[in-house]
Amino acid sequence: MELARESGPVRIARYREVRSLSERLAATLSPEDQQIQAFAYASPTKWHLGHVTWFFETFVLGRHDPGRKLYCAAFETLFNSYYEGLGPRIARGMRGLLSRPTASEVRAWRAAIDGEMEALLEGEMEASLAAMIELGLHHEQQHQELLLTDILANFSANPLLPAWRDEAIPRCEPAPAPQWIDRAGGIVDIGHRGPGFHFDNEAPAHRAVLEPYALRTTVVTNAEVLAFIADGGYGEARLWLADGIAWVREHGITAPAYWRRDDDGRWWTFSLHGEQPLDPNAPVTHVSGYEADAIATWLGARLPTEEEWEVAARSVGGDPAAARWLENGPVTPLAGTGHPTDLCGLWGETWEWTRSAYAPYPGFRPLKGAAGEYNGKFMANQWVLRGGSCATPPGHIRATYRNFFYPHQRWQFTGVRLARDAR
Amino acid sequence: MELARESGPVRIARYREVRSLSERLAATLSPEDQQIQAFAYASPTKWHLGHVTWFFETFVLGRHDPGRKLYCAAFETLFNSYYEGLGPRIARGMRGLLSRPTASEVRAWRAAIDGEMEALLEGEMEASLAAMIELGLHHEQQHQELLLTDILANFSANPLLPAWRDEAIPRCEPAPAPQWIDRAGGIVDIGHRGPGFHFDNEAPAHRAVLEPYALRTTVVTNAEVLAFIADGGYGEARLWLADGIAWVREHGITAPAYWRRDDDGRWWTFSLHGEQPLDPNAPVTHVSGYEADAIATWLGARLPTEEEWEVAARSVGGDPAAARWLENGPVTPLAGTGHPTDLCGLWGETWEWTRSAYAPYPGFRPLKGAAGEYNGKFMANQWVLRGGSCATPPGHIRATYRNFFYPHQRWQFTGVRLARDAR
Amino acid sequence: MELARESGPVRIARYREVRSLSERLAATLSPEDQQIQAFAYASPTKWHLGHVTWFFETFVLGRHDPGRKLYCAAFETLFNSYYEGLGPRIARGMRGLLSRPTASEVRAWRAAIDGEMEALLEGEMEASLAAMIELGLHHEQQHQELLLTDILANFSANPLLPAWRDEAIPRCEPAPAPQWIDRAGGIVDIGHRGPGFHFDNEAPAHRAVLEPYALRTTVVTNAEVLAFIADGGYGEARLWLADGIAWVREHGITAPAYWRRDDDGRWWTFSLHGEQPLDPNAPVTHVSGYEADAIATWLGARLPTEEEWEVAARSVGGDPAAARWLENGPVTPLAGTGHPTDLCGLWGETWEWTRSAYAPYPGFRPLKGAAGEYNGKFMANQWVLRGGSCATPPGHIRATYRNFFYPHQRWQFTGVRLARDAR
Amino acid sequence: MELARESGPVRIARYREVRSLSERLAATLSPEDQQIQAFAYASPTKWHLGHVTWFFETFVLGRHDPGRKLYCAAFETLFNSYYEGLGPRIARGMRGLLSRPTASEVRAWRAAIDGEMEALLEGEMEASLAAMIELGLHHEQQHQELLLTDILANFSANPLLPAWRDEAIPRCEPAPAPQWIDRAGGIVDIGHRGPGFHFDNEAPAHRAVLEPYALRTTVVTNAEVLAFIADGGYGEARLWLADGIAWVREHGITAPAYWRRDDDGRWWTFSLHGEQPLDPNAPVTHVSGYEADAIATWLGARLPTEEEWEVAARSVGGDPAAARWLENGPVTPLAGTGHPTDLCGLWGETWEWTRSAYAPYPGFRPLKGAAGEYNGKFMANQWVLRGGSCATPPGHIRATYRNFFYPHQRWQFTGVRLARDAR
Repeated sequence: MELARESGPVRIARYREVRSLSERLAATLSPEDQQIQAFAYASPTKWHLGHVTWFFETFVLGRHDPGRKLYCAAFETLFNSYYEGLGPRIARGMRGLLSRPTASEVRAWRAAIDGEMEALLEGEMEASLAAMIELGLHHEQQHQELLLTDILANFSANPLLPAWRDEAIPRCEPAPAPQWIDRAGGIVDIGHRGPGFHFDNEAPAHRAVLEPYALRTTVVTNAEVLAFIADGGYGEARLWLADGIAWVREHGITAPAYWRRDDDGRWWTFSLHGEQPLDPNAPVTHVSGYEADAIATWLGARLPTEEEWEVAARSVGGDPAAARWLENGPVTPLAGTGHPTDLCGLWGETWEWTRSAYAPYPGFRPLKGAAGEYNGKFMANQWVLRGGSCATPPGHIRATYRNFFYPHQRWQFTGVRLARDAR
Repeated sequence: MELARESGPVRIARYREVRSLSERLAATLSPEDQQIQAFAYASPTKWHLGHVTWFFETFVLGRHDPGRKLYCAAFETLFNSYYEGLGPRIARGMRGLLSRPTASEVRAWRAAIDGEMEALLEGEMEASLAAMIELGLHHEQQHQELLLTDILANFSANPLLPAWRDEAIPRCEPAPAPQWIDRAGGIVDIGHRGPGFHFDNEAPAHRAVLEPYALRTTVVTNAEVLAFIADGGYGEARLWLADGIAWVREHGITAPAYWRRDDDGRWWTFSLHGEQPLDPNAPVTHVSGYEADAIATWLGARLPTEEEWEVAARSVGGDPAAARWLENGPVTPLAGTGHPTDLCGLWGETWEWTRSAYAPYPGFRPLKGAAGEYNGKFMANQWVLRGGSCATPPGHIRATYRNFFYPHQRWQFTGVRLARDAR
Repeated sequence: MELARESGPVRIARYREVRSLSERLAATLSPEDQQIQAFAYASPTKWHLGHVTWFFETFVLGRHDPGRKLYCAAFETLFNSYYEGLGPRIARGMRGLLSRPTASEVRAWRAAIDGEMEALLEGEMEASLAAMIELGLHHEQQHQELLLTDILANFSANPLLPAWRDEAIPRCEPAPAPQWIDRAGGIVDIGHRGPGFHFDNEAPAHRAVLEPYALRTTVVTNAEVLAFIADGGYGEARLWLADGIAWVREHGITAPAYWRRDDDGRWWTFSLHGEQPLDPNAPVTHVSGYEADAIATWLGARLPTEEEWEVAARSVGGDPAAARWLENGPVTPLAGTGHPTDLCGLWGETWEWTRSAYAPYPGFRPLKGAAGEYNGKFMANQWVLRGGSCATPPGHIRATYRNFFYPHQRWQFTGVRLARDAR
Repeated sequence: MELARESGPVRIARYREVRSLSERLAATLSPEDQQIQAFAYASPTKWHLGHVTWFFETFVLGRHDPGRKLYCAAFETLFNSYYEGLGPRIARGMRGLLSRPTASEVRAWRAAIDGEMEALLEGEMEASLAAMIELGLHHEQQHQELLLTDILANFSANPLLPAWRDEAIPRCEPAPAPQWIDRAGGIVDIGHRGPGFHFDNEAPAHRAVLEPYALRTTVVTNAEVLAFIADGGYGEARLWLADGIAWVREHGITAPAYWRRDDDGRWWTFSLHGEQPLDPNAPVTHVSGYEADAIATWLGARLPTEEEWEVAARSVGGDPAAARWLENGPVTPLAGTGHPTDLCGLWGETWEWTRSAYAPYPGFRPLKGAAGEYNGKFMANQWVLRGGSCATPPGHIRATYRNFFYPHQRWQFTGVRLARDAR
């Protein structure tokens, strides 16, 4: 995407496409649904819809016209996520307590900002402003995925187990037999190079040394995790990192998030389509980094490094998951539609934990200004995930993309890719 | 109230009067407003509207017709407050996470139950059933007060400081000069005697011995608490109970709840009418029992015992606060409309902390059955409050009424009555 | 005890008797044993030995001679328990971290203060000074009991389960069959009257009204609590106060403190003599007020009020437990030596929970000065216990004595007396 | 050290040298001093002395003679640190509660084990047993450093601020002017290669790519941190990692650990020699990784990666710090004796935080057996430190050594090395 060189109508169409998806994702939710926040990490739908709008108002409209009057001054505080450079903000866990502005007031704000944005997009614009708009669109796409993972988390606190969509989820076909693909390693190129949008944390491109290794073609399935559970995996400290087994014991973890075993011993999983029978053929999701590491160890493997992952992913090419999304709409992929042979499960179904701590690339420079707070300050204590999930919007998946979460977190669609040292 | 001896139309009118007040109190609140719960103790409006309905469905309709089908089986769990005898329930602090049922679904449920209840009220009924309905109406009145105190608490978490009603609050006239009224003490009668509704904790009537004492005619004002603050009262451990000063230090308490001093040194208080300039003449509210005790000590006095309070209150007679409520609607008293001379601030403006721990009266017997879980099991660690507040519904104030809260709590309209030993 | 009227040698003998008992109680403990503090509430032995000495240095020697130089200025902070009027002090839970002063340094300090005190005791003294010394001796006796209960708590954290004394504990004979003794109630006298030492909280003497009631002659035995456990008492919410069952659930309580059931189903209890087989005939000890209340409810009874207890206890007269202590030394009574028929278990074996919240008597006045911080400021949220235990020093038991703890605490020798309303 | 090829007397001498240092380090500490544990992370001296002995008994004597009877079976649980494969153990934070075994009982145990060990060391031994003994000696050296850092932490909780040694600490000369030394980067060798002891986490040796970079010759001094404080560094969120500023705010951090500013504005630091005036020329110690990162940012630099550090350190060669230790005994280096020109402060004075997350080297294999639990399971969420401190025993410093702590921890002697990308 290179917004600066596009025509006004093309720009507006792209802007509308991203913005309207956010509203379509929220369309099945009542004002009350959009209000709730069951965990500090799972923001209300309404807050997501407001925050991405705040981004355009603050970083685009406000920068373009410093004399511009804010739509509502209080929103500057209420919808700032964590930008220290932009003044006070409310604590993350308090977002669900803001009954005002209401959902319809937030929607009115969105419409007003969209009007201003589209007027801006029609005319000439400097490259730096275009780049900030592009960043805003990618930022909104990130929040589209969070909107889905967060409403799932927030619904999970209700014994009624509400559904975001009521359609049934198709079952997965059995995956093809897993294969191990050897990689020679050596001196490799890592990071984003060339044209096209990327976040600052994907740069600068640089070299790394890889020892020979192998990756498994398919990600770990629910069936494999059921076997891990049956073998007592959650109780066997020797499979776990020390922090991992401490987390298991403190929280009494016995299965991936949202799994439930009923009195008859059948397994269920809570999804955006309500509670569903667990599909053994589907990729496991909602495992923490600690679980991913222990499951990989139990399977005689390990997690890949992010460099091992990137080199392999780049060789697969394309973006098949995005293709699936566009064909099927954002709903179907959530069901995990199986394992197209051209993809071999390599990426795009679940975010794949790597064993790499999230750190700056050599020579990393954050963006200038307040927007530069985004990536650099989080480069500690989190782990890199690669790939993308059924909830990732189209066009938001690429081989150099670095997602990151703390290793105990698992409310995203996070799964397990296996690696091993070459024999 | 003696429902068993009234005619059907009279009964129905009384039922409707209580039930409709609940809905009028919620009328200014959006679905989102009715959803939020900022503290475990401050239930959502929607939950209150549901819970009082659950009471009628469970304890009246369900008992009357054991074969009756529940309106919605899940509501039995969602709207049970704490009755162990009635099966599982969700944790109190989770009530704000139940976006479903929505506010309009709860309202539909209320209407359905009201239809059944009114059919029942038309006909003959046994005394025990009538008593349970009477209990249900008083129970709903209790929750009407909580609905107001809870929406105030829940709004207080929003930096926008929303108002339940937008009307301005009239300022109080200066109270008449405080007087001390001496009481001889001796052997006195305590507790409810004779006809009329009372909760089980007001019985049995019994005797107690009181030493000579005096009560002050007016309750403590905001001006007096400002003087306490100016004198360093919150920092002077010797004024406080040991648990009180520990609470002050742990929570950094420097003023009653909802008070704020702006950068110019002016005091404001957050109310159901939004943030208002602090009225020095108004009775202080939203103080904890610890604060009440320390303020009384600083004023050279002490809190009364509940027996001292009851004997004095009974001699005043009537229910002036209720009269004011009926004339002015439920809104005006919230403003603290001043100190009619016939009342002399004796009771009805704020709940008045006593120094009496909440305990069973000699010979106390809880109600039979699950409804009997209400009072007895709370008779530990709480303090008795007497009187009633601007938010207490009409007809819900009487000299024997025993309210109770933990001494650190202050989200109710709680104030300070002064007592002292006779000289 | 009226120290002001005694001769110097008599005074010195009494002083030495109390002071030396403290050291005899600590004689079996290593410097490390005297150092440890496993819970914030269980102070180290060394701290007790220092704190009671600090009391004499601060309140007696320091008041007597304001120009006197402190033995060690730092001790003023280290050994102040909670007197706000006397400057800073270290947090209660930090006492176990003070490796310096060492146990032998504390003992040297004790000896130096004893020298000064005995010089003072030889001469004339004003009544107010004599009263303060008397208070100091009673204060030291209180800490002698705490020294024992605290070392028991502190040893309980060590898997080696160390013993304070190694002698075996004799088993109890079965108690005589419990009887219920009816009391007429009426207007009764409560509180300390006449000569003899008493704490300020036992005064002023005053009248109270009691309804007819009955007390059981024997306290609840371990066998009765075993039956309560076998009947599922810890899981039956309807037996418990609301705060009680919440405490049970939060802490996973399934038996009195220090009880353990081994793999063969046999019960053991950890005592000052190490772990011992549970004696079914012995009075239960180490139950919280919540447990006491639930056990009484399960037995079809209730806890007595403190007034009911005092009136009954006074009629028994004497101090049989003290007699036993003097004959046997402080060791034997810890074993629970059975139930002399003259005592009928009425009091002196365990502290007996009452249902009375700890509150000031009508007209209560704390002591003047810093020593007056002792009792008044604790008169909230605690429950009164009456009686005395196997660990209470001789001469420290009387019918008007008011002990007090929070209802969840159970590291004292606390048991259950049953009461009921007269039929 | 290659114990397998040495003669018996040489082996015994080496064994005694390490073991006796532990006892010399504890020689100034009373039994009470050796008992205390003020923080879960700061184990008692006595526990360290026992734990290293447990290592020899469990991993050497027990493996050599499986039929051998344990010295005391309970010690197996009490002195196991975290080896899941070796059965239960007591929680880390409970170590300070074990008054038994006493310090002298632990010392008797040490002597008994030493007797057995020396008998073993006299004879022939297999390479695997020799390797385990070597590991045990290095393990004991690690605990010698911890013994010192832990007693410092444990003493810091005592308002008396006790000293481990009473000698005064010499002041540092001003360091030479800092210089930046450029490094070309390229493909470099990392990790331990060749003979000599190393921990498993230093292997396998492997290649890495480094971009051109520079390191500063001198570590950050106290004077530089004073300037950081004066400039408001602790309050300026933009200097900090997000987790770092959250840690600062949660704990109210305003200076490195053990620093205190008195009422006259002078700075003091608590040390093993008691509280001392802060020496502006000395290297800063006791900063967390978060502080190190923020201070480096404020100085216009960044932390080095562990690879950048290792390549530079290897080129310096030798072990000057060890030389200083041997000459001066373990005391003097604690004072920070200044900056010998041959060292240029490059390493050996403080542990130097790197920005590298602690992770396995490519192809990493843990040791076989229970001893292999040591390093691998901690490879998450911690940061690598390189170098060594004034408290590191001689012979325990090498260029490939990887120390690791969580980024919030700062009770070690941890300081700041500056790096930057080449211009």
